[in-house]
Amino acid sequence: MTAALSRLPGLGPRSARRAVLWLIKRRETALVQLLDALGAVQGALVECEVCGNIDTHDPCAICADPRRDMRALCVVEEVADLWALDRARLFTGKYHVLGGRLSALDGVRPEDLAIDRLLARVEQGGVDEVVLAMNATLEGQTTAHYLAERLEAFPVRITQLAHGLPVGGELDYLDEGTLAQAIRARRPVA
Amino acid sequence: MTAALSRLPGLGPRSARRAVLWLIKRRETALVQLLDALGAVQGALVECEVCGNIDTHDPCAICADPRRDMRALCVVEEVADLWALDRARLFTGKYHVLGGRLSALDGVRPEDLAIDRLLARVEQGGVDEVVLAMNATLEGQTTAHYLAERLEAFPVRITQLAHGLPVGGELDYLDEGTLAQAIRARRPVA
Repeated sequence: MTAALSRLPGLGPRSARRAVLWLIKRRETALVQLLDALGAVQGALVECEVCGNIDTHDPCAICADPRRDMRALCVVEEVADLWALDRARLFTGKYHVLGGRLSALDGVRPEDLAIDRLLARVEQGGVDEVVLAMNATLEGQTTAHYLAERLEAFPVRITQLAHGLPVGGELDYLDEGTLAQAIRARRPVA
Repeated sequence: MTAALSRLPGLGPRSARRAVLWLIKRRETALVQLLDALGAVQGALVECEVCGNIDTHDPCAICADPRRDMRALCVVEEVADLWALDRARLFTGKYHVLGGRLSALDGVRPEDLAIDRLLARVEQGGVDEVVLAMNATLEGQTTAHYLAERLEAFPVRITQLAHGLPVGGELDYLDEGTLAQAIRARRPVA
Protein backbone atom coordinates (compact mmCIF):
# COMPACT_ATOMS: atom_id res chain seq x y z
CA MET A 1 0.00 0.00 0.00
CA THR A 2 2.88 2.35 0.80
CA ALA A 3 4.45 1.76 -2.60
CA ALA A 4 1.15 2.37 -4.40
CA LEU A 5 0.46 5.56 -2.46
CA SER A 6 3.98 6.93 -2.85
CA ARG A 7 3.53 6.86 -6.62
CA LEU A 8 0.90 9.60 -6.31
CA PRO A 9 2.29 12.97 -7.42
CA GLY A 10 3.16 15.14 -4.43
CA LEU A 11 3.42 12.20 -2.04
CA GLY A 12 6.92 10.98 -1.22
CA PRO A 13 7.72 7.66 0.48
CA ARG A 14 7.78 9.32 3.89
CA SER A 15 4.36 10.98 3.65
CA ALA A 16 3.03 7.81 2.01
CA ARG A 17 4.07 5.81 5.10
CA ARG A 18 2.37 8.37 7.31
CA ALA A 19 -0.81 8.18 5.20
CA VAL A 20 -0.77 4.37 5.34
CA LEU A 21 -0.50 4.37 9.13
CA TRP A 22 -3.28 6.94 9.34
CA LEU A 23 -5.50 4.76 7.10
CA ILE A 24 -4.70 1.53 8.99
CA LYS A 25 -5.73 3.13 12.26
CA ARG A 26 -9.02 4.13 10.62
CA ARG A 27 -9.51 0.95 8.60
CA GLU A 28 -13.18 0.71 9.62
CA THR A 29 -14.00 4.30 8.60
CA ALA A 30 -11.63 6.34 6.40
CA LEU A 31 -10.15 3.33 4.58
CA VAL A 32 -13.58 1.98 3.71
CA GLN A 33 -14.69 5.38 2.44
CA LEU A 34 -11.56 5.78 0.34
CA LEU A 35 -12.04 2.29 -1.14
CA ASP A 36 -15.66 3.09 -1.99
CA ALA A 37 -14.76 6.39 -3.57
CA LEU A 38 -11.94 4.92 -5.66
CA GLY A 39 -14.11 1.97 -6.69
CA ALA A 40 -16.93 4.27 -7.77
CA VAL A 41 -14.54 6.34 -9.83
CA GLN A 42 -12.93 3.30 -11.41
CA GLY A 43 -16.29 2.00 -12.53
CA ALA A 44 -17.78 5.29 -13.64
CA LEU A 45 -15.04 7.17 -15.46
CA VAL A 46 -14.66 6.87 -19.20
CA GLU A 47 -12.59 8.59 -21.84
CA CYS A 48 -14.69 10.72 -24.16
CA GLU A 49 -14.45 9.19 -27.63
CA VAL A 50 -14.82 12.59 -29.28
CA CYS A 51 -12.26 14.73 -27.44
CA GLY A 52 -10.34 12.47 -25.06
CA ASN A 53 -11.58 14.22 -21.90
CA ILE A 54 -12.27 12.04 -18.85
CA ASP A 55 -15.78 12.17 -17.47
CA THR A 56 -18.59 9.96 -16.17
CA HIS A 57 -20.31 10.14 -19.56
CA ASP A 58 -19.21 9.50 -23.15
CA PRO A 59 -19.42 11.93 -24.92
CA CYS A 60 -18.24 14.13 -22.06
CA ALA A 61 -20.22 17.02 -20.56
CA ILE A 62 -18.32 19.55 -22.70
CA CYS A 63 -18.81 17.69 -25.98
CA ALA A 64 -22.49 17.11 -25.14
CA ASP A 65 -23.16 20.75 -24.16
CA PRO A 66 -25.14 22.40 -27.00
CA ARG A 67 -24.31 25.90 -25.69
CA ARG A 68 -20.62 25.44 -26.46
CA ASP A 69 -19.32 26.78 -29.74
CA MET A 70 -18.72 23.97 -32.23
CA ARG A 71 -16.66 26.26 -34.47
CA ALA A 72 -13.71 26.72 -32.10
CA LEU A 73 -11.56 23.74 -31.21
CA CYS A 74 -8.85 24.03 -28.55
CA VAL A 75 -6.09 21.38 -28.72
CA VAL A 76 -4.32 20.52 -25.44
CA GLU A 77 -1.65 18.03 -24.42
CA GLU A 78 -3.33 16.42 -21.43
CA VAL A 79 -6.71 16.20 -19.71
CA ALA A 80 -5.24 18.27 -16.85
CA ASP A 81 -4.62 21.11 -19.33
CA LEU A 82 -8.22 20.93 -20.54
CA TRP A 83 -9.45 21.23 -16.95
CA ALA A 84 -7.06 24.11 -16.24
CA LEU A 85 -8.20 26.06 -19.30
CA ASP A 86 -11.83 25.39 -18.56
CA ARG A 87 -11.38 26.73 -15.01
CA ALA A 88 -10.33 30.03 -16.61
CA ARG A 89 -13.90 30.17 -18.07
CA LEU A 90 -12.94 32.14 -21.11
CA PHE A 91 -12.92 29.60 -23.89
CA THR A 92 -16.42 28.58 -24.91
CA GLY A 93 -15.60 26.14 -27.69
CA LYS A 94 -14.78 22.44 -27.66
CA TYR A 95 -11.52 20.67 -26.82
CA HIS A 96 -9.28 17.96 -28.20
CA VAL A 97 -6.83 16.08 -25.96
CA LEU A 98 -3.67 14.80 -27.69
CA GLY A 99 -2.65 12.55 -24.81
CA GLY A 100 0.90 13.90 -24.67
CA ARG A 101 3.46 15.86 -26.65
CA LEU A 102 5.98 14.95 -29.33
CA SER A 103 9.25 14.03 -27.67
CA ALA A 104 12.38 12.63 -29.25
CA LEU A 105 13.74 11.96 -25.76
CA ASP A 106 10.77 9.90 -24.61
CA GLY A 107 10.24 8.39 -28.06
CA VAL A 108 6.76 9.89 -28.54
CA ARG A 109 5.96 10.08 -32.26
CA PRO A 110 2.96 11.67 -34.01
CA GLU A 111 1.21 8.30 -34.29
CA ASP A 112 1.34 7.95 -30.50
CA LEU A 113 -0.88 11.02 -30.09
CA ALA A 114 -4.54 11.58 -31.03
CA ILE A 115 -3.54 13.60 -34.11
CA ASP A 116 -5.39 11.55 -36.71
CA ARG A 117 -8.55 11.91 -34.66
CA LEU A 118 -7.96 15.69 -34.54
CA LEU A 119 -7.51 15.91 -38.32
CA ALA A 120 -10.63 13.80 -38.82
CA ARG A 121 -12.64 16.20 -36.63
CA VAL A 122 -11.39 19.19 -38.59
CA GLU A 123 -11.94 17.49 -41.94
CA GLN A 124 -15.51 16.69 -40.96
CA GLY A 125 -16.13 20.45 -41.20
CA GLY A 126 -17.87 23.00 -39.02
CA VAL A 127 -14.61 24.10 -37.35
CA ASP A 128 -13.46 27.68 -38.08
CA GLU A 129 -10.61 28.03 -35.61
CA VAL A 130 -8.14 25.60 -34.07
CA VAL A 131 -6.42 26.98 -30.95
CA LEU A 132 -3.08 25.26 -30.30
CA ALA A 133 -2.90 25.43 -26.50
CA MET A 134 0.35 23.57 -25.91
CA ASN A 135 2.57 24.22 -22.90
CA ALA A 136 5.21 26.92 -23.41
CA THR A 137 7.91 24.24 -23.16
CA LEU A 138 10.26 23.13 -25.94
CA GLU A 139 8.32 19.91 -26.54
CA GLY A 140 4.97 21.67 -26.34
CA GLN A 141 6.03 24.23 -28.93
CA THR A 142 7.52 21.55 -31.20
CA THR A 143 4.17 19.77 -31.06
CA ALA A 144 2.33 23.03 -31.87
CA HIS A 145 4.54 23.64 -34.93
CA TYR A 146 3.99 20.10 -36.13
CA LEU A 147 0.22 20.43 -35.74
CA ALA A 148 0.18 23.82 -37.48
CA GLU A 149 1.86 22.24 -40.50
CA ARG A 150 -0.54 19.32 -40.58
CA LEU A 151 -3.54 21.67 -40.24
CA GLU A 152 -2.42 23.97 -43.06
CA ALA A 153 -4.27 21.78 -45.54
CA PHE A 154 -7.63 22.71 -44.03
CA PRO A 155 -9.57 25.97 -44.38
CA VAL A 156 -9.34 26.88 -40.67
CA ARG A 157 -7.77 29.72 -38.73
CA ILE A 158 -4.88 28.36 -36.63
CA THR A 159 -4.10 30.34 -33.47
CA GLN A 160 -1.94 29.84 -30.42
CA LEU A 161 -2.09 31.03 -26.83
CA ALA A 162 -0.45 34.39 -26.15
CA HIS A 163 3.02 34.29 -24.64
CA GLY A 164 4.26 37.06 -22.35
CA LEU A 165 4.08 38.27 -18.76
CA PRO A 166 2.04 36.07 -16.42
CA VAL A 167 -0.43 37.81 -14.07
CA GLY A 168 1.52 39.40 -11.21
CA GLY A 169 4.75 39.10 -13.18
CA GLU A 170 7.40 41.67 -12.29
CA LEU A 171 9.95 42.42 -15.01
CA ASP A 172 12.88 42.24 -12.64
CA TYR A 173 12.04 38.65 -11.64
CA LEU A 174 11.17 37.23 -15.07
CA ASP A 175 13.56 35.28 -17.28
CA GLU A 176 14.97 36.89 -20.40
CA GLY A 177 13.10 34.56 -22.75
CA THR A 178 9.75 35.67 -21.36
CA LEU A 179 10.76 39.34 -21.49
CA ALA A 180 11.94 38.94 -25.08
CA GLN A 181 8.60 37.40 -26.06
CA ALA A 182 6.67 40.09 -24.20
CA ILE A 183 8.50 42.81 -26.11
CA ARG A 184 8.38 41.03 -29.46
CA ALA A 185 4.61 40.43 -29.18
CA ARG A 186 3.77 43.83 -27.69
CA ARG A 187 0.40 45.11 -28.77
CA PRO A 188 -1.47 48.39 -29.07
CA VAL A 189 -3.16 49.64 -25.93
CA ALA A 190 -6.89 49.28 -26.58
CA MET B 1 27.47 47.56 10.48
CA THR B 2 25.16 44.57 11.05
CA ALA B 3 22.09 46.81 10.90
CA ALA B 4 23.27 48.47 7.69
CA LEU B 5 24.07 45.14 6.03
CA SER B 6 20.84 43.48 7.12
CA ARG B 7 18.90 46.13 5.21
CA LEU B 8 20.25 44.73 1.93
CA PRO B 9 17.60 42.73 0.09
CA GLY B 10 18.15 39.01 0.54
CA LEU B 11 20.25 39.42 3.66
CA GLY B 12 18.49 38.73 6.98
CA PRO B 13 19.86 39.75 10.40
CA ARG B 14 21.42 36.32 10.86
CA SER B 15 23.36 36.25 7.58
CA ALA B 16 24.27 39.92 8.13
CA ARG B 17 25.91 38.99 11.45
CA ARG B 18 27.80 36.21 9.70
CA ALA B 19 28.94 38.62 6.97
CA VAL B 20 30.07 41.18 9.55
CA LEU B 21 32.17 38.59 11.39
CA TRP B 22 33.65 37.44 8.09
CA LEU B 23 34.52 41.04 7.17
CA ILE B 24 35.98 41.83 10.63
CA LYS B 25 38.29 38.84 10.42
CA ARG B 26 39.46 40.11 7.02
CA ARG B 27 39.51 43.81 7.92
CA GLU B 28 42.91 44.29 6.28
CA THR B 29 41.89 42.70 2.97
CA ALA B 30 38.23 42.06 2.10
CA LEU B 31 36.86 44.96 4.16
CA VAL B 32 39.25 47.43 2.57
CA GLN B 33 38.39 46.18 -0.90
CA LEU B 34 34.66 46.43 -0.18
CA LEU B 35 35.09 49.98 1.15
CA ASP B 36 37.04 50.98 -1.95
CA ALA B 37 34.48 49.46 -4.28
CA LEU B 38 31.51 51.08 -2.51
CA GLY B 39 33.32 54.42 -2.36
CA ALA B 40 34.11 54.32 -6.06
CA VAL B 41 30.49 53.57 -6.88
CA GLN B 42 29.19 56.29 -4.55
CA GLY B 43 31.36 58.88 -6.25
CA ALA B 44 30.87 57.72 -9.80
CA LEU B 45 27.19 56.83 -10.17
CA VAL B 46 24.75 59.43 -11.38
CA GLU B 47 21.13 59.40 -12.46
CA CYS B 48 20.72 60.04 -16.18
CA GLU B 49 18.86 63.35 -16.57
CA VAL B 50 17.23 62.17 -19.78
CA CYS B 51 15.82 58.76 -18.86
CA GLY B 52 16.43 58.23 -15.14
CA ASN B 53 18.77 55.26 -15.64
CA ILE B 54 21.72 54.94 -13.24
CA ASP B 55 25.15 54.90 -14.82
CA THR B 56 28.65 56.32 -14.47
CA HIS B 57 27.85 58.95 -17.12
CA ASP B 58 25.06 61.47 -17.61
CA PRO B 59 23.48 61.01 -20.16
CA CYS B 60 23.71 57.26 -19.62
CA ALA B 61 25.30 54.79 -22.08
CA ILE B 62 21.90 53.93 -23.57
CA CYS B 63 20.81 57.55 -24.09
CA ALA B 64 24.22 58.40 -25.54
CA ASP B 65 24.31 55.42 -27.93
CA PRO B 66 23.63 56.68 -31.48
CA ARG B 67 22.84 53.15 -32.71
CA ARG B 68 19.73 52.97 -30.55
CA ASP B 69 16.41 53.84 -32.13
CA MET B 70 15.23 57.29 -30.99
CA ARG B 71 11.72 56.64 -32.30
CA ALA B 72 10.80 53.93 -29.78
CA LEU B 73 10.54 54.81 -26.09
CA CYS B 74 10.03 52.10 -23.47
CA VAL B 75 8.59 53.29 -20.13
CA VAL B 76 9.46 51.22 -17.04
CA GLU B 77 8.75 51.54 -13.33
CA GLU B 78 12.26 51.13 -11.92
CA VAL B 79 15.88 51.08 -13.04
CA ALA B 80 15.92 47.34 -12.25
CA ASP B 81 13.19 46.83 -14.88
CA LEU B 82 15.24 48.75 -17.47
CA TRP B 83 18.22 46.50 -16.79
CA ALA B 84 16.05 43.37 -16.95
CA LEU B 85 14.54 44.38 -20.31
CA ASP B 86 17.89 45.33 -21.71
CA ARG B 87 19.31 41.93 -20.73
CA ALA B 88 16.65 40.41 -23.03
CA ARG B 89 18.43 42.26 -25.92
CA LEU B 90 15.32 42.65 -28.00
CA PHE B 91 14.35 46.26 -27.54
CA THR B 92 16.65 48.59 -29.44
CA GLY B 93 15.02 51.92 -28.54
CA LYS B 94 15.46 54.23 -25.56
CA TYR B 95 14.01 54.01 -22.07
CA HIS B 96 12.24 56.20 -19.54
CA VAL B 97 12.26 55.33 -15.82
CA LEU B 98 9.21 56.51 -13.85
CA GLY B 99 10.78 55.89 -10.46
CA GLY B 100 7.82 53.86 -9.16
CA ARG B 101 4.17 53.12 -9.81
CA LEU B 102 0.92 54.83 -8.90
CA SER B 103 -0.27 53.46 -5.58
CA ALA B 104 -3.19 54.62 -3.48
CA LEU B 105 -1.95 52.39 -0.66
CA ASP B 106 1.55 53.89 -0.57
CA GLY B 107 0.30 57.38 -1.43
CA VAL B 108 2.20 57.59 -4.72
CA ARG B 109 0.53 60.17 -6.98
CA PRO B 110 1.29 61.06 -10.63
CA GLU B 111 3.37 64.08 -9.55
CA ASP B 112 5.65 61.76 -7.55
CA LEU B 113 6.71 59.96 -10.74
CA ALA B 114 8.73 61.21 -13.72
CA ILE B 115 5.58 61.56 -15.83
CA ASP B 116 5.96 65.23 -16.76
CA ARG B 117 9.47 64.49 -17.96
CA LEU B 118 8.06 61.63 -20.07
CA LEU B 119 5.39 63.85 -21.65
CA ALA B 120 8.01 66.52 -22.33
CA ARG B 121 10.18 63.95 -24.15
CA VAL B 122 7.24 62.82 -26.27
CA GLU B 123 6.10 66.38 -26.96
CA GLN B 124 9.60 67.26 -28.14
CA GLY B 125 8.88 64.99 -31.12
CA GLY B 126 10.78 62.24 -32.89
CA VAL B 127 9.04 59.48 -30.91
CA ASP B 128 6.76 57.15 -32.91
CA GLU B 129 6.00 54.49 -30.33
CA VAL B 130 5.75 54.47 -26.55
CA VAL B 131 5.94 50.96 -25.06
CA LEU B 132 4.32 50.80 -21.61
CA ALA B 133 6.41 48.11 -19.92
CA MET B 134 4.85 48.13 -16.47
CA ASN B 135 4.81 45.06 -14.24
CA ALA B 136 1.77 42.80 -14.67
CA THR B 137 0.62 43.74 -11.16
CA LEU B 138 -2.50 45.71 -10.24
CA GLU B 139 -0.54 48.89 -9.54
CA GLY B 140 1.62 48.46 -12.63
CA GLN B 141 -1.44 48.10 -14.85
CA THR B 142 -3.17 51.06 -13.19
CA THR B 143 -0.09 53.13 -13.96
CA ALA B 144 -0.09 51.91 -17.58
CA HIS B 145 -3.73 52.89 -18.03
CA TYR B 146 -3.09 56.31 -16.55
CA LEU B 147 -0.11 56.87 -18.86
CA ALA B 148 -2.06 55.67 -21.90
CA GLU B 149 -4.70 58.32 -21.20
CA ARG B 150 -2.14 61.07 -20.74
CA LEU B 151 -0.33 60.03 -23.94
CA GLU B 152 -3.49 59.99 -26.06
CA ALA B 153 -3.00 63.67 -26.81
CA PHE B 154 0.19 62.94 -28.78
CA PRO B 155 0.52 61.44 -32.27
CA VAL B 156 2.34 58.30 -31.07
CA ARG B 157 1.56 54.60 -31.14
CA ILE B 158 1.02 53.36 -27.58
CA THR B 159 1.77 49.67 -27.02
CA GLN B 160 2.12 47.40 -24.03
CA LEU B 161 4.06 44.22 -23.31
CA ALA B 162 2.32 41.00 -24.26
CA HIS B 163 0.65 39.11 -21.43
CA GLY B 164 0.31 35.33 -21.53
CA LEU B 165 2.26 32.15 -20.84
CA PRO B 166 5.81 32.68 -19.55
CA VAL B 167 8.58 30.60 -21.13
CA GLY B 168 8.41 27.07 -19.76
CA GLY B 169 4.86 27.67 -18.51
CA GLU B 170 2.71 24.56 -18.22
CA LEU B 171 -1.03 25.14 -18.40
CA ASP B 172 -1.78 22.89 -15.47
CA TYR B 173 0.45 24.96 -13.15
CA LEU B 174 -0.56 28.47 -14.24
CA ASP B 175 -3.15 30.62 -12.50
CA GLU B 176 -6.51 31.18 -14.11
CA GLY B 177 -5.89 34.87 -14.75
CA THR B 178 -2.84 34.11 -16.86
CA LEU B 179 -4.69 31.36 -18.76
CA ALA B 180 -7.63 33.70 -19.38
CA GLN B 181 -5.28 36.35 -20.80
CA ALA B 182 -3.44 33.78 -22.90
CA ILE B 183 -6.73 32.65 -24.47
CA ARG B 184 -8.14 36.15 -24.87
CA ALA B 185 -4.98 37.42 -26.58
CA ARG B 186 -4.40 34.29 -28.69
CA ARG B 187 -2.88 35.03 -32.05
CA PRO B 188 -2.54 33.49 -35.49
CA VAL B 189 0.27 30.99 -35.93
CA ALA B 190 2.78 32.68 -38.21
